[in-house]
Amino acid sequence: MQEEIKIKNWLQENREKGIRFLQRLVQEGSTRGNESSAQAIIIEKCRKLGLTLDIWEIGENKLLEHPVYRSDRKDFTGNPNVIGVLKGTGGGQSMILNGHIDVVPEGNRKDWHQDPFSGLLEDGKIYGRGSTDMKGGTASLLLAMEAIISLNIQLKGDVIFQSVIEEESGGAGTLATVLRGYRADGAIIPEPTNMKLFPKQQGSMWFRITVKGRSAHGGTRYEGVNAIEKAMLIIKALNELEKMRNAKINDSLYQNIPIPVPINIGKIQSGQWPSSVPDIAVIEGRIGVAPSETMAKVEQELEDCLSQLAKSDEWLRNNQPKIEWFGGRWLPGNLEVDHPLMTTLKTSFEKVKKEKPIIEASPWGTDGGILSTVGNTPVVIFGPGTTEAAHDVNEYISVDAVFIAAEIIALSLLEWCKIDS
Amino acid sequence: MQEEIKIKNWLQENREKGIRFLQRLVQEGSTRGNESSAQAIIIEKCRKLGLTLDIWEIGENKLLEHPVYRSDRKDFTGNPNVIGVLKGTGGGQSMILNGHIDVVPEGNRKDWHQDPFSGLLEDGKIYGRGSTDMKGGTASLLLAMEAIISLNIQLKGDVIFQSVIEEESGGAGTLATVLRGYRADGAIIPEPTNMKLFPKQQGSMWFRITVKGRSAHGGTRYEGVNAIEKAMLIIKALNELEKMRNAKINDSLYQNIPIPVPINIGKIQSGQWPSSVPDIAVIEGRIGVAPSETMAKVEQELEDCLSQLAKSDEWLRNNQPKIEWFGGRWLPGNLEVDHPLMTTLKTSFEKVKKEKPIIEASPWGTDGGILSTVGNTPVVIFGPGTTEAAHDVNEYISVDAVFIAAEIIALSLLEWCKIDS
Repeated sequence: MQEEIKIKNWLQENREKGIRFLQRLVQEGSTRGNESSAQAIIIEKCRKLGLTLDIWEIGENKLLEHPVYRSDRKDFTGNPNVIGVLKGTGGGQSMILNGHIDVVPEGNRKDWHQDPFSGLLEDGKIYGRGSTDMKGGTASLLLAMEAIISLNIQLKGDVIFQSVIEEESGGAGTLATVLRGYRADGAIIPEPTNMKLFPKQQGSMWFRITVKGRSAHGGTRYEGVNAIEKAMLIIKALNELEKMRNAKINDSLYQNIPIPVPINIGKIQSGQWPSSVPDIAVIEGRIGVAPSETMAKVEQELEDCLSQLAKSDEWLRNNQPKIEWFGGRWLPGNLEVDHPLMTTLKTSFEKVKKEKPIIEASPWGTDGGILSTVGNTPVVIFGPGTTEAAHDVNEYISVDAVFIAAEIIALSLLEWCKIDS
Repeated sequence: MQEEIKIKNWLQENREKGIRFLQRLVQEGSTRGNESSAQAIIIEKCRKLGLTLDIWEIGENKLLEHPVYRSDRKDFTGNPNVIGVLKGTGGGQSMILNGHIDVVPEGNRKDWHQDPFSGLLEDGKIYGRGSTDMKGGTASLLLAMEAIISLNIQLKGDVIFQSVIEEESGGAGTLATVLRGYRADGAIIPEPTNMKLFPKQQGSMWFRITVKGRSAHGGTRYEGVNAIEKAMLIIKALNELEKMRNAKINDSLYQNIPIPVPINIGKIQSGQWPSSVPDIAVIEGRIGVAPSETMAKVEQELEDCLSQLAKSDEWLRNNQPKIEWFGGRWLPGNLEVDHPLMTTLKTSFEKVKKEKPIIEASPWGTDGGILSTVGNTPVVIFGPGTTEAAHDVNEYISVDAVFIAAEIIALSLLEWCKIDS
């Protein structure tokens, strides 16, 4: 098909420009609450592409009362969601292209070889927090659309580009798009899959466990109960629970994943004074939810695990650890492996890469759970970044991968939305 | 002796007034950096007693360059040390009466039955952070002095009352008194010994251990190394070190102490995000130093323990945990059990209590280490509070104990400084 060759050529010719765009996007470090300057770059690009813009600060449409909404963020002022629609001529299938603009904190700055928001290009990689998760993916989406628009290819179906906030905290941004009425016949989310196709996605939930101790002077620590010691018992029990839960997973899509549904201990805080026995410890983490599981069942399993532990420890029996299901939660996604959207993506992949794609289940939650469950939109996760680089120091994205993903996505749009010739 | 009966009577007659004074002192919560309003009450009392006042903000006399100085506090402005001297007529032995005004943080406010700085009197106890450690003791000192002054008893030796800051952080306040020239033939520090005599005191040091992990997305936590898990290995190793060190203690003064020189894990901080594998964990704690040990030896033992641990773990071998000896350190104290100061206190104790005192070694560091080692002043720790209540929620002091301690201290002053009759 002539259009496919044109797209390949356009992407080659516009490589420099595409790289500069992604670098600028990475340089605007968009950690939670600081998304606006990166969104400004997105808005500028959408405007240049002639997309119909919808820019709004989320919170309306009873977002905060929705059962899936679990954010602990109170204020979205100044940090909008952005949607740019490329209206089709009619008669084709619509497609949502969804990327989140928020990035996780940079961690320990000293461990970065360069500024965490440098956007440095070196050996074919662009470095910086958010490069792989998922500004590289967002760049692929916009390059695909820009190629189609620049080449004057008319699509029949609508393409709805979304740059959302709050994915890393549980998807309030994408939930807001659904409540605002955005749905489609299919959706691609270019999270860092390392070019694999993920029709199924692990869900996940955040938990906070608070355990008490009894304070005392450190010099007579035997008069107190150290909350850190009790927190260690809980962490051990959670490790055991993780083992047990993963032993039961037999979905073949997970066969190459060392721990299909991990329990991550992400944070611990305890104590105020080196010479005092700490009287309270707070653990925060995330537990994975298998595509076939419900959130409620997983909550129950973790709660049962702690009740069981408390039986074996006199102090915990009398001072039950408290669990809160706070902040982020990502619904699992569960698309059939042979859904037409999968076929479209597989075909495009094979055309561009001359090989079959790897099909797996994602090891993490994405906004795909909300789009498919609440928005009733079939979702495939497919993107150029790598999970290994995501959330790590010296996060990077391969420039080649960004452009190959852009080409595969562009070809999928031609196939899915149909060309009006 | 007639004066002894007079003192007993005076204390009985002035019980109400003494209680109110202690309540006011507790109500002025004097955590680190907020000592001034409690010191104001001390200053007012010293002025009423006609003592020669010396009030100064510490930091002069090369305090910060002194090898024993290890505070991490930079600014002492507005929170002075206070000394009030009762000049003797000459020919007697001098006595320092030393109490610290700083209190540790109140911990979890919700666990307190009442405001942590209520000063509430209930069932013969006064409640509040600092009541037992050691404003109750300070009240005993001032009651003893007030009784003697009010009864017009002239002493030959000087009595040097000291209300110092920074004891809970390593003794910069008392070090400043020594560098300012205050020394004496003996000293009593009424830390919460539960009316036991402590000629020997455990020293202690604060440590901070920083251990690295490698961050990753929590959904693929197996790609990272969790710093909290590594911190747990370190805590376990410190527990083992504590066992080993305590197995070697054979001083009979420690025979009733479950853990003579404890290692307390006082604080842990790790992680920024529930869905990320944390890449750094920081542990803070204190390690006890036996009266017969040097600080240098104990530092070496802890450092060796971590080196040993690192050998058994590949990650730690390549990412050696870092130890800092920061903030507070308290020199151990080591007075002979048959020193004349001990004899004086024992005699007074037996007169008042009609029983023999219990003699032990303190389970915690005090300013006695600095007074005896740097200030060359023999020190006994003896006070009305209890170690169990110190640093705990619902800290309290027995009013009876405060008045009995005051009587014992007053009688000791008569004996030590001699009456000029």
